[in-house]
Amino acid sequence: MSTDFTATRALFDLPEGVIYLDGNSLGPLPRAAAARVAQSVSEEWGKLLIAGWNAAGWMEMPTRIGNRIARLIGAEPNSVVLGDTLSIKVYQALASALDLAAPGRKVILSDSGNFPTDLYMAEGLIKSLGRGHVLRVVAPEEVAGALDDSVAVMMLTEVDYRTGRRHDMAELTAKARAAGAMTIWDLAHSAGAVPVDLSGAGADFAVGCTYKYLNGGPGAPAFIYVAPRLADRVRPALSGWLGHDAPFDFEPAYRPGRGIERMRVGTPPVLQMAALDAALDVWDGVDMADLRARSLALTDQFIADIEDCCPVLQLATPRDHARRGSQVSLRHPQGYAIMQALIAEGVVGDFRAPDILRFGFTPLYTSSEDVAMAAAVLTDVMRQELWDRPEYQVRARVT
Amino acid sequence: MSTDFTATRALFDLPEGVIYLDGNSLGPLPRAAAARVAQSVSEEWGKLLIAGWNAAGWMEMPTRIGNRIARLIGAEPNSVVLGDTLSIKVYQALASALDLAAPGRKVILSDSGNFPTDLYMAEGLIKSLGRGHVLRVVAPEEVAGALDDSVAVMMLTEVDYRTGRRHDMAELTAKARAAGAMTIWDLAHSAGAVPVDLSGAGADFAVGCTYKYLNGGPGAPAFIYVAPRLADRVRPALSGWLGHDAPFDFEPAYRPGRGIERMRVGTPPVLQMAALDAALDVWDGVDMADLRARSLALTDQFIADIEDCCPVLQLATPRDHARRGSQVSLRHPQGYAIMQALIAEGVVGDFRAPDILRFGFTPLYTSSEDVAMAAAVLTDVMRQELWDRPEYQVRARVT
Repeated sequence: MSTDFTATRALFDLPEGVIYLDGNSLGPLPRAAAARVAQSVSEEWGKLLIAGWNAAGWMEMPTRIGNRIARLIGAEPNSVVLGDTLSIKVYQALASALDLAAPGRKVILSDSGNFPTDLYMAEGLIKSLGRGHVLRVVAPEEVAGALDDSVAVMMLTEVDYRTGRRHDMAELTAKARAAGAMTIWDLAHSAGAVPVDLSGAGADFAVGCTYKYLNGGPGAPAFIYVAPRLADRVRPALSGWLGHDAPFDFEPAYRPGRGIERMRVGTPPVLQMAALDAALDVWDGVDMADLRARSLALTDQFIADIEDCCPVLQLATPRDHARRGSQVSLRHPQGYAIMQALIAEGVVGDFRAPDILRFGFTPLYTSSEDVAMAAAVLTDVMRQELWDRPEYQVRARVT
Repeated sequence: MSTDFTATRALFDLPEGVIYLDGNSLGPLPRAAAARVAQSVSEEWGKLLIAGWNAAGWMEMPTRIGNRIARLIGAEPNSVVLGDTLSIKVYQALASALDLAAPGRKVILSDSGNFPTDLYMAEGLIKSLGRGHVLRVVAPEEVAGALDDSVAVMMLTEVDYRTGRRHDMAELTAKARAAGAMTIWDLAHSAGAVPVDLSGAGADFAVGCTYKYLNGGPGAPAFIYVAPRLADRVRPALSGWLGHDAPFDFEPAYRPGRGIERMRVGTPPVLQMAALDAALDVWDGVDMADLRARSLALTDQFIADIEDCCPVLQLATPRDHARRGSQVSLRHPQGYAIMQALIAEGVVGDFRAPDILRFGFTPLYTSSEDVAMAAAVLTDVMRQELWDRPEYQVRARVT
């Protein structure tokens, strides 16, 4: 293994006394990010002012940083651009895919493991379009069988946010293509979590966020991938001025920019981009195969420990390595209270309704010792019923 | 005058030796913003991690900060929400307005003084909808006359980004309403620049950005206003999970949130929001009538100085106070080179194709002495033809 995970862990500012297993929701602070953001605020915004757009390279950040992410998801150079939120990027991808889909096909095929916002955005787009499109949501294992000649677009999240179940991207993409459907992959729980090969799989579109496994910070921008063979054919529904071929000519009519540039919309969030840029430095020496091996070792270890000690917690994550993301999810009717008790004991995971305890394993900063300790604390919480206190039953809004 | 503009100026970190008259493009750094962003990065993200969404109030930022902006634009409480970019907010407002417009009306009426991205977004939406909507762009002075019974939505930018010409919002909104049209006002060059009274005018929707006169920093989030009488009837086209009535219940179908909350889409950009929040502190003691009086005094002074010294520069901004925003624009065929020369001499304005020199006057930090000095430098540049150098002719991409 060529990647030094002790070294990557040292690049994060991890709070004392906490085992953080929620990096699949919000990654922790990379040490370099604080200085990089401060520089962006005080030296760039403060001193360069408007000149920062050119002199500090703000205008190019969405494509430059897009290329840094491309390496992590098997995307071709200049096929990824940053901006907006994942919801907006889903809308862009879906509107474009429907536009390119074979005429007459009306079905957007997704599964019940998709993140709700992807489905909500599809719903909103379908209503706006008013052309009789239909969102068909099947069980994850039924997707392949549902790929018939009515399907315009197959839109899936590769790794299920609740269970950590991972689709076979290569196989499903090939089947979708054979069935004549366009493909959109949501990589929210894949980018930085598992090796992804968009180019090899022949995906048409992909989207993802950067505040989970990529550690870009709260509200970090999203990304969108468009296969190079399609990029110049895509007609953006969100045709904003920074996706124009010549934004500063202020022409009255929209002309899409070259390739992926047309998926830009408005002014990029420079401070968030600066944080993300620093966060991506951590990835420079990381081999994705090493990351995957370590992720599987960590999740295997946690699964074994928990099954040993707490058979009452039902494993929701596939045992099969090929079908697992980089998280472990456990079901229990008192899942919410158990997670509150765990957090109080210094082990931070999260809860997803109705009954899922979710733990993200992030090799960049999670060690085997962390896993052993987390399992031990969870064992304690279960054996001593530490979760059975009134204050752990009160639900606060969590992310 | 109750507002102390010497005190507000001291709240900004202005670079030495520069007279900054480009706050209408990117406002300068409020001193408090650097510390506030650093706190958000190191104390909130770094130490609270995922708990920051509740403990640091991240989740409420879009509506809490929306209410701070509401005061500055004459909006009712809980009628403004922050997020995304201005382009996205234009799309949301226009899609909603078309949805509420009288059936059969197909025209989106705008003017040639509107910012191109507003027109581009309309173009994209029209193509997506495919229902025969038409974008009709008339000269600014012809808008009122064009309000016939074909107009579904009147969408205007109150203050022209090039000339600083200001529409009469109250009058045009009343006329649009009498003609049965919905109204959308883009306040990009109004919010923090001139007193705005959305509620008094009876506007239906408004949008704006926060990185110009509100000094929120590069890529600061946009805002959207929906009149309270409409907010619960609006059907969001961009139906994202944070606009859902119960985002953390992860329901399979979208149910719009209460009122303005439904115009939220994805995860808010927390670091940008923190910068903006600090920037808005500057406004706490500012009376908008005082701001306006001073803005007019500064622009009057600059116009008088320039007309005195440099009659070759043609005034593009209305002399009539009622029709003027908070900028002065001058036309000259060599406008680009003149602006480069001015910037080299320490006076920062900007250039807008084909021939406009643009100067923003921002009472919070621009003094009468700044104006006199800027006029003197511009006079020098013109009299000595300092702009006539090859290096000033080369166009770089500017914002």
